[in-house]
Amino acid sequence: MARIVVDVMPKAEILDPQGQAIVGALGRLGFPGVSDVRQGKRFELEVEGDLSDEQLQQIAADVLANTVIEDFTVTRVNA
Amino acid sequence: MARIVVDVMPKAEILDPQGQAIVGALGRLGFPGVSDVRQGKRFELEVEGDLSDEQLQQIAADVLANTVIEDFTVTRVNA
Repeated sequence: MARIVVDVMPKAEILDPQGQAIVGALGRLGFPGVSDVRQGKRFELEVEGDLSDEQLQQIAADVLANTVIEDFTVTRVNA
Repeated sequence: MARIVVDVMPKAEILDPQGQAIVGALGRLGFPGVSDVRQGKRFELEVEGDLSDEQLQQIAADVLANTVIEDFTVTRVNA
Protein backbone atom coordinates (compact mmCIF):
# COMPACT_ATOMS: atom_id res chain seq x y z
CA MET A 1 0.00 0.00 0.00
CA ALA A 2 1.57 3.23 -1.14
CA ARG A 3 0.37 6.77 -0.79
CA ILE A 4 0.71 9.13 -3.72
CA VAL A 5 0.14 12.87 -3.53
CA VAL A 6 -0.72 14.78 -6.70
CA ASP A 7 -0.68 18.57 -6.46
CA VAL A 8 -2.47 20.43 -9.24
CA MET A 9 -2.00 24.19 -9.58
CA PRO A 10 -3.14 26.70 -12.18
CA LYS A 11 -0.35 27.57 -14.62
CA ALA A 12 1.47 30.80 -13.81
CA GLU A 13 0.02 32.60 -16.84
CA ILE A 14 -3.57 31.64 -15.95
CA LEU A 15 -5.60 34.14 -13.93
CA ASP A 16 -6.74 32.77 -10.57
CA PRO A 17 -9.79 34.75 -9.44
CA GLN A 18 -10.33 32.52 -6.40
CA GLY A 19 -6.82 33.29 -5.22
CA GLN A 20 -7.30 37.00 -5.83
CA ALA A 21 -10.52 36.95 -3.81
CA ILE A 22 -8.58 35.43 -0.92
CA VAL A 23 -5.91 38.15 -1.18
CA GLY A 24 -8.67 40.75 -0.93
CA ALA A 25 -10.32 39.06 2.01
CA LEU A 26 -7.02 38.75 3.89
CA GLY A 27 -6.33 42.46 3.34
CA ARG A 28 -9.68 43.39 4.85
CA LEU A 29 -9.07 41.00 7.76
CA GLY A 30 -5.78 42.63 8.69
CA PHE A 31 -3.21 40.60 6.74
CA PRO A 32 -2.06 43.05 4.04
CA GLY A 33 1.33 41.31 3.85
CA VAL A 34 -0.07 38.47 1.75
CA SER A 35 0.63 39.70 -1.77
CA ASP A 36 -0.49 36.71 -3.83
CA VAL A 37 -2.49 33.53 -3.38
CA ARG A 38 -2.91 30.71 -5.88
CA GLN A 39 -5.53 28.06 -5.24
CA GLY A 40 -5.11 24.56 -6.58
CA LYS A 41 -6.05 21.00 -5.74
CA ARG A 42 -4.42 18.24 -3.76
CA PHE A 43 -5.20 14.56 -4.32
CA GLU A 44 -4.14 11.80 -1.95
CA LEU A 45 -4.23 8.36 -3.60
CA GLU A 46 -3.98 5.02 -1.82
CA VAL A 47 -2.50 2.48 -4.22
CA GLU A 48 -2.50 -1.30 -3.74
CA GLY A 49 0.31 -3.10 -5.48
CA ASP A 50 2.54 -0.84 -7.48
CA LEU A 51 1.97 1.62 -10.25
CA SER A 52 4.91 2.77 -12.37
CA ASP A 53 5.92 6.40 -12.54
CA GLU A 54 4.58 6.42 -16.09
CA GLN A 55 1.18 5.17 -14.93
CA LEU A 56 1.07 7.79 -12.19
CA GLN A 57 1.94 10.53 -14.66
CA GLN A 58 -0.85 9.24 -16.92
CA ILE A 59 -3.39 9.28 -14.07
CA ALA A 60 -2.40 12.81 -13.12
CA ALA A 61 -2.35 14.18 -16.66
CA ASP A 62 -5.49 12.43 -17.96
CA VAL A 63 -7.78 12.34 -14.93
CA LEU A 64 -6.72 14.68 -12.14
CA ALA A 65 -5.38 17.74 -13.97
CA ASN A 66 -6.47 19.75 -16.98
CA THR A 67 -3.06 20.20 -18.56
CA VAL A 68 -4.25 23.03 -20.76
CA ILE A 69 -4.50 25.31 -17.74
CA GLU A 70 -2.90 23.38 -14.88
CA ASP A 71 0.48 21.99 -13.90
CA PHE A 72 0.84 18.98 -11.64
CA THR A 73 3.45 17.29 -9.50
CA VAL A 74 3.38 13.64 -8.41
CA THR A 75 5.02 12.69 -5.10
CA ARG A 76 5.37 9.25 -3.52
CA VAL A 77 4.88 9.48 0.23
CA ASN A 78 6.41 6.88 2.53
CA ALA A 79 3.50 5.53 4.55
CA MET B 1 9.30 37.33 0.38
CA ALA B 2 8.31 33.95 1.74
CA ARG B 3 6.20 31.24 0.22
CA ILE B 4 3.71 29.43 2.40
CA VAL B 5 1.83 26.31 1.36
CA VAL B 6 -1.44 25.43 3.09
CA ASP B 7 -2.88 21.99 2.35
CA VAL B 8 -6.54 21.52 3.24
CA MET B 9 -8.03 18.01 3.23
CA PRO B 10 -11.41 16.65 4.24
CA LYS B 11 -11.31 15.06 7.70
CA ALA B 12 -10.97 11.28 7.65
CA GLU B 13 -14.51 10.75 8.93
CA ILE B 14 -16.04 13.00 6.25
CA LEU B 15 -17.30 11.33 3.08
CA ASP B 16 -15.52 12.54 -0.05
CA PRO B 17 -17.80 11.91 -3.04
CA GLN B 18 -15.43 13.68 -5.44
CA GLY B 19 -12.66 11.32 -4.42
CA GLN B 20 -14.94 8.30 -4.78
CA ALA B 21 -15.94 9.43 -8.26
CA ILE B 22 -12.25 9.53 -9.19
CA VAL B 23 -11.73 5.99 -7.82
CA GLY B 24 -14.60 4.81 -10.03
CA ALA B 25 -13.26 6.59 -13.09
CA LEU B 26 -9.76 5.18 -12.59
CA GLY B 27 -11.17 1.67 -12.30
CA ARG B 28 -12.99 2.06 -15.61
CA LEU B 29 -9.83 3.48 -17.21
CA GLY B 30 -7.74 0.47 -16.25
CA PHE B 31 -6.25 1.47 -12.90
CA PRO B 32 -8.09 -0.80 -10.44
CA GLY B 33 -5.15 -0.67 -8.03
CA VAL B 34 -6.12 2.78 -6.77
CA SER B 35 -8.23 1.91 -3.74
CA ASP B 36 -8.93 5.35 -2.32
CA VAL B 37 -8.69 8.98 -3.38
CA ARG B 38 -9.25 12.05 -1.23
CA GLN B 39 -9.55 15.43 -2.89
CA GLY B 40 -8.55 18.56 -1.04
CA LYS B 41 -7.19 22.01 -1.74
CA ARG B 42 -3.72 23.48 -1.94
CA PHE B 43 -3.02 27.18 -1.41
CA GLU B 44 0.29 28.85 -2.25
CA LEU B 45 0.71 32.21 -0.50
CA GLU B 46 3.36 34.83 -1.25
CA VAL B 47 4.04 36.82 1.90
CA GLU B 48 5.94 40.10 2.09
CA GLY B 49 7.61 40.80 5.39
CA ASP B 50 7.00 38.13 7.96
CA LEU B 51 3.93 36.58 9.45
CA SER B 52 4.22 34.61 12.68
CA ASP B 53 3.27 30.97 12.88
CA GLU B 54 0.23 32.04 14.92
CA GLN B 55 -0.88 34.43 12.18
CA LEU B 56 -0.45 31.73 9.54
CA GLN B 57 -2.48 29.30 11.61
CA GLN B 58 -5.18 31.96 11.97
CA ILE B 59 -5.25 32.59 8.20
CA ALA B 60 -5.53 28.87 7.48
CA ALA B 61 -8.17 28.16 10.13
CA ASP B 62 -10.34 31.25 9.58
CA VAL B 63 -10.09 31.86 5.84
CA LEU B 64 -8.71 28.90 3.90
CA ALA B 65 -10.18 25.87 5.69
CA ASN B 66 -13.55 24.98 7.12
CA THR B 67 -12.32 23.37 10.32
CA VAL B 68 -15.66 21.69 10.96
CA ILE B 69 -15.03 19.30 8.07
CA GLU B 70 -11.41 19.92 7.02
CA ASP B 71 -7.93 19.56 8.44
CA PHE B 72 -5.07 21.75 7.31
CA THR B 73 -1.29 21.84 7.40
CA VAL B 74 0.87 24.95 7.03
CA THR B 75 4.34 24.60 5.50
CA ARG B 76 6.98 27.29 4.96
CA VAL B 77 8.76 26.75 1.65
CA ASN B 78 12.26 28.08 1.11
CA ALA B 79 12.06 30.26 -1.98
